[in-house]
Amino acid sequence: MTARLLLGLFLASIGAAAAAEANLPSWQDGPAKAAIVQFVRDVTDESSKSFVPPAQRIAVFDNDGTLWSEQPVYFQAAFMLDRLKAAAPDHPEWRENPAYQALVSRDEAQLARVGMKPVLELLAAANAGMTTEEYGASIKSWLKTAVHPRYKRPYTELVYKPMQELLAYLREHGFQTWIVSGGGIEFMRAWTEASYGIPPQQVIGSIAETRFELQGGEPALVREPKVAFVDDGAGKPVGIYRAIGRRPIAAFGNSDGDLQMLQYAAVGEGRRLAVIIHHDDTEREYAYDRESRIGRLDKLLDEAKARKWVVVSMKDDWNRVFPFE
Amino acid sequence: MTARLLLGLFLASIGAAAAAEANLPSWQDGPAKAAIVQFVRDVTDESSKSFVPPAQRIAVFDNDGTLWSEQPVYFQAAFMLDRLKAAAPDHPEWRENPAYQALVSRDEAQLARVGMKPVLELLAAANAGMTTEEYGASIKSWLKTAVHPRYKRPYTELVYKPMQELLAYLREHGFQTWIVSGGGIEFMRAWTEASYGIPPQQVIGSIAETRFELQGGEPALVREPKVAFVDDGAGKPVGIYRAIGRRPIAAFGNSDGDLQMLQYAAVGEGRRLAVIIHHDDTEREYAYDRESRIGRLDKLLDEAKARKWVVVSMKDDWNRVFPFE
Repeated sequence: MTARLLLGLFLASIGAAAAAEANLPSWQDGPAKAAIVQFVRDVTDESSKSFVPPAQRIAVFDNDGTLWSEQPVYFQAAFMLDRLKAAAPDHPEWRENPAYQALVSRDEAQLARVGMKPVLELLAAANAGMTTEEYGASIKSWLKTAVHPRYKRPYTELVYKPMQELLAYLREHGFQTWIVSGGGIEFMRAWTEASYGIPPQQVIGSIAETRFELQGGEPALVREPKVAFVDDGAGKPVGIYRAIGRRPIAAFGNSDGDLQMLQYAAVGEGRRLAVIIHHDDTEREYAYDRESRIGRLDKLLDEAKARKWVVVSMKDDWNRVFPFE
Repeated sequence: MTARLLLGLFLASIGAAAAAEANLPSWQDGPAKAAIVQFVRDVTDESSKSFVPPAQRIAVFDNDGTLWSEQPVYFQAAFMLDRLKAAAPDHPEWRENPAYQALVSRDEAQLARVGMKPVLELLAAANAGMTTEEYGASIKSWLKTAVHPRYKRPYTELVYKPMQELLAYLREHGFQTWIVSGGGIEFMRAWTEASYGIPPQQVIGSIAETRFELQGGEPALVREPKVAFVDDGAGKPVGIYRAIGRRPIAAFGNSDGDLQMLQYAAVGEGRRLAVIIHHDDTEREYAYDRESRIGRLDKLLDEAKARKWVVVSMKDDWNRVFPFE
């Protein structure tokens, strides 16, 4: 047995140990899984020059399209539509509002044209005057009855099983797992702890203005009809800075709105990980990228190729997409 | 031995056990310490109807005057003054600015008149264009050389030993400890982990606008000359809501800027704790309350009396104030 062969066997045994230790049953063995597992090995190995102390093991995840589905429309948009319809009689001025018209007619092209901000403003107006507790309760109540048009299941069942496993795997290895999403912060906080094991204080999202008051002696935060912060695109690193104050070493996203977050986490010195979830599975989920109105993956796909980031094929790298399969 | 006497002995033994289990050597035995320890016993006792699961054991602390000193001026003001002086040659317009004039002439009456916002705006302007990393480094560098005018020691030595013990005691009992301060978030994040065991992601504070960019290929967040959020007064519950998303069950403060935070945490159903640090020790620290320009304790003192909140006398309830004593 030559030294070279011995070395080869030794490295193979390490690789096998790495694969065995990673509890990721919904992931196919392949380059994407191997790259993630190798990254975790490197940053948690105290003898490695890539070692990262646990306090700095911050991993950030986009939500829509990265941890759960986002087609045929963002799930929060379905919720918003129901809330807007309920609030519309009190807002005659909405009849002339392009964002409102696009929402009720489910005009996706128009929605894409008006962008996220007027939609968030509409939602902020629809929910103005509610306390944050009332708003949270309305989200939980909606999630109990609303059903996805294709899967005929509650939206919270449309979380990705491989990502649930990945979140748990990272936490087992001393990582803090955070959500950084363009969606409304309360919409996520209502269910992320149960679905992902991510508590409210590790959810970063878009925020409406609120004001504090005592209502009949009870403390309350009341929603104002104004957007305070949009956590999307170049806003994501800002949201991370405000809430965490440390630069993440790993980031997971699926669309152009995640580009700057992945740059912030993964460009620069030291061992870093950037992963893109590529929707290429029409059969079990949806297939879309450069031309999609929702979750467009265009600039980020170019960047990922240029920087050799990990691109996960949902079709090939996941042997299971949803928990219910 | 009567049943009543037995019960008395039983209760006394519980009290002794409670005092023994609480590792708070800098606290005098007395009503303030007893109330805090009893609260912790109640919410951590699974058989008690006051039991609170660990995930909801959120305790929030003001910083200036609650965890460290704030006299003769907020320590951040001393830092700001040095930064402003360094930046002044590039800002001739400041010569006419009342907040700037008040700062350089150390005119506290004028400072109190102009309020916090123009001061934060000046600081934001002085540091505009710096990356957040450069700004953090400038804070750390300043803290190494700056010295408190009375104690002739670095400012980071002026943390309260009893509060350090209390933070550790709460964490040992499953609490998450958070700072919620009107001060700049970065100014605190530079040293709170070393001094209090509170990591950057559990520091809530006032925030300057930042923008993300790649500088020569390196990701950077650059400070803008604009205040994004003032975490003071009614802003504190808003800051808590944005960052934590759960209502705290315990809050500690020392001035009127903490009133709404203490109301938010302590008014309402369930077992809750509100504690006020009362500065009444001229010998070891400072004595001030209703008339003070810095750290005024007036409305909050009335509220504390009306609601029977815990008022800690630094003179009587602490047998030691600073670690260096």
